[in-house]
Amino acid sequence: MIEPKEALRIILDEVKLQSVEKVNLMDSLGYVLAEDVFSDMDIPPFDNSAMDGFAIIASDTVGSLRESPKKLTVLGSLRAGDVSNVKVVSGSALKIMTGAPTPAGADAVVKKEDTFLNDNEVSVLSEIKKGENIRLAGEDMIKGEKVLSIGTCLKPQQIGLFASLGKSKVKVFKTPTVAIISTGDELVEIDESLKPGKIRNSNTYSLTAQVMLCGANPLSLGIARDNVADTKKKIELGLDNSDVLLTTGGVSMGDYDVVKDVLGDLGAELKFWKVAQKPGMPLAFWRLDDKLIFGLPGNPVSTMVCFEEYVRPAVLKMMGRKLIFRSEVNAVFEHDLKKKSGRVFFVRVNVRRKNGEFYVSLTGPQGSGILKSMSLADGIAVIPSDKTLIKTGDKVKVHLVNLPEDH
Amino acid sequence: MIEPKEALRIILDEVKLQSVEKVNLMDSLGYVLAEDVFSDMDIPPFDNSAMDGFAIIASDTVGSLRESPKKLTVLGSLRAGDVSNVKVVSGSALKIMTGAPTPAGADAVVKKEDTFLNDNEVSVLSEIKKGENIRLAGEDMIKGEKVLSIGTCLKPQQIGLFASLGKSKVKVFKTPTVAIISTGDELVEIDESLKPGKIRNSNTYSLTAQVMLCGANPLSLGIARDNVADTKKKIELGLDNSDVLLTTGGVSMGDYDVVKDVLGDLGAELKFWKVAQKPGMPLAFWRLDDKLIFGLPGNPVSTMVCFEEYVRPAVLKMMGRKLIFRSEVNAVFEHDLKKKSGRVFFVRVNVRRKNGEFYVSLTGPQGSGILKSMSLADGIAVIPSDKTLIKTGDKVKVHLVNLPEDH
Repeated sequence: MIEPKEALRIILDEVKLQSVEKVNLMDSLGYVLAEDVFSDMDIPPFDNSAMDGFAIIASDTVGSLRESPKKLTVLGSLRAGDVSNVKVVSGSALKIMTGAPTPAGADAVVKKEDTFLNDNEVSVLSEIKKGENIRLAGEDMIKGEKVLSIGTCLKPQQIGLFASLGKSKVKVFKTPTVAIISTGDELVEIDESLKPGKIRNSNTYSLTAQVMLCGANPLSLGIARDNVADTKKKIELGLDNSDVLLTTGGVSMGDYDVVKDVLGDLGAELKFWKVAQKPGMPLAFWRLDDKLIFGLPGNPVSTMVCFEEYVRPAVLKMMGRKLIFRSEVNAVFEHDLKKKSGRVFFVRVNVRRKNGEFYVSLTGPQGSGILKSMSLADGIAVIPSDKTLIKTGDKVKVHLVNLPEDH
Repeated sequence: MIEPKEALRIILDEVKLQSVEKVNLMDSLGYVLAEDVFSDMDIPPFDNSAMDGFAIIASDTVGSLRESPKKLTVLGSLRAGDVSNVKVVSGSALKIMTGAPTPAGADAVVKKEDTFLNDNEVSVLSEIKKGENIRLAGEDMIKGEKVLSIGTCLKPQQIGLFASLGKSKVKVFKTPTVAIISTGDELVEIDESLKPGKIRNSNTYSLTAQVMLCGANPLSLGIARDNVADTKKKIELGLDNSDVLLTTGGVSMGDYDVVKDVLGDLGAELKFWKVAQKPGMPLAFWRLDDKLIFGLPGNPVSTMVCFEEYVRPAVLKMMGRKLIFRSEVNAVFEHDLKKKSGRVFFVRVNVRRKNGEFYVSLTGPQGSGILKSMSLADGIAVIPSDKTLIKTGDKVKVHLVNLPEDH
């Protein structure tokens, strides 16, 4: 039996970064950039007007007032998307729309609201400073500049930045495929009827959703029965078609717990079995070639907690994400909780924030089969192995699983 | 010109909850539950063993010690998924696997690690308490109990809970379709070559990604040119196929800003135009029948910020989400910033957390076309309208746009 920290270290040491693929820009949301990106042009590409108004020479407006405006001759009009050969000289102006290139000669734009137009004569109602309302070429990005770094997780603003640079393909780290096998003779599929002794296979569903929220591809392989032949067939199928394989159940002390035997036969290297934690003690972890294999316990909550604490960081690391852990906060515990020493307890809690301080309370009974208290949890409080008593008001570390805004 | 708060209030007042649809369980992740859900059975459905071991009568083990174990006759073995007709009587035990129903007569399970088996006689190496290692029927959910409430945003743990109840279909609020039209003669598509005076259409891409991150369906309709005919055609197409329509550009003071005219002709009711904010001043908002229409400004950052501050909460409210706003924190500002009074400034900032306190610094120049400083931002600091100076060390409100773990 090893400590949770040691288990996590072993897992993360085995993670290899995914290979690189080129995807369409709109498919890259949430992926991690696998290249440094440089601008191959100035953005904006040309000086342009930030306002609808008139391109002018700023010095022409010295002393301009609403009561005694300076008047300029309008040489024409320029819309966004067009270019003009007109040169603005002292005493003249060019009507200009937002985004249109500023014409030669002009060094400022007076916005429409600060003018009065009469035929082809525009009155400027205030003094305008040189450069006012002109966006300079390259003020966003300069040609040759590094604008995004490898390892950036792509969000809407980076997608927009790529678009403005005309990059319709992006190099990203491939999203891993995570195969999921639930094991157990007691399991039936969710729309089958329940016979005595049977329960429904919920782990496939919760795990599939957890994989999806990581941004990885789930591959659900259904239920493997508690015999070597069926378990081996499903595991081989999973290994052939995934980067990470998850099994649930079949890793405990039972006579029909065949997962470990099957993986041993297939040549997988067992890195550890059993972690000093509750829930999730029977957790096992193997490596086979480039594949990571997690033997998750069968209880619904154990499975979900082990995914959160071990599988999720591994998958995010494979994808090239820099921050692979949930936000961890110190929170005030609102119960007395007794436990035996020797195991870390992962406790399902509700998280509240009040005056900048976090408070957590238990969401209900903590049995490893009790999904209801998991479904109410925003966080997992981590109670250290050596503690035997946590008292109301004590501080505990909490991994924030659902942020408030996710509700 | 209205205040940002008033603009938001007007928008949210116009939001109608989406209609309800039934979706497959695995398609419901991130949706909002549109019904209260009751358990139609006990979960677990029967008392069962939490361990691999032996089902026994606890009182048989009184006085049991490793040195002088009590010995019980093993009546047989029961695997998960099976049921047994065996009745455990004093002096006997039934070998049992995790998840198997506890047999009649037994009131505890001793785990395998605490026993020693010799043929059909098991030695129990310690005293076992009544109820130990037995999971009671209904300990997770009781038949008839309300287990999930309308308005719950479905996450992996709720998906698992539905599965355990055998519910393969879920009633949720329909995800809205958000149509996106970029307007402007200056725009070219991202893989076209750039001619003088032209820039690339980045808004369609950043908005599409923002819509996706809300959990809504984006419908990208490309570029509408700055003339009534083309703009009208695209807007009609958008209205016919969406719940929310976004346009970018064409809502300012320019001669070719036709969006307002077209929507007026189509009978849309203009709820407001112009908000006292920077960026995003020309924001406009209409209602037409059940459709909400946002006229977003054309500058890339104005568009994104207006989406964040106005469109996102509206879309989340339509979807039935309870918490529709980003987390707001008070943060220490790390610059001196001068501004004119009369407008709220939305400022792009980098957010750091240190000793439980948030600190924010500007990500770069704040021009409304400067995507680079947007691409580096984790938050939007909200500088009140009446402020003209924020000093280093002052506290400001910050909307957290990207949580640290998103990087």
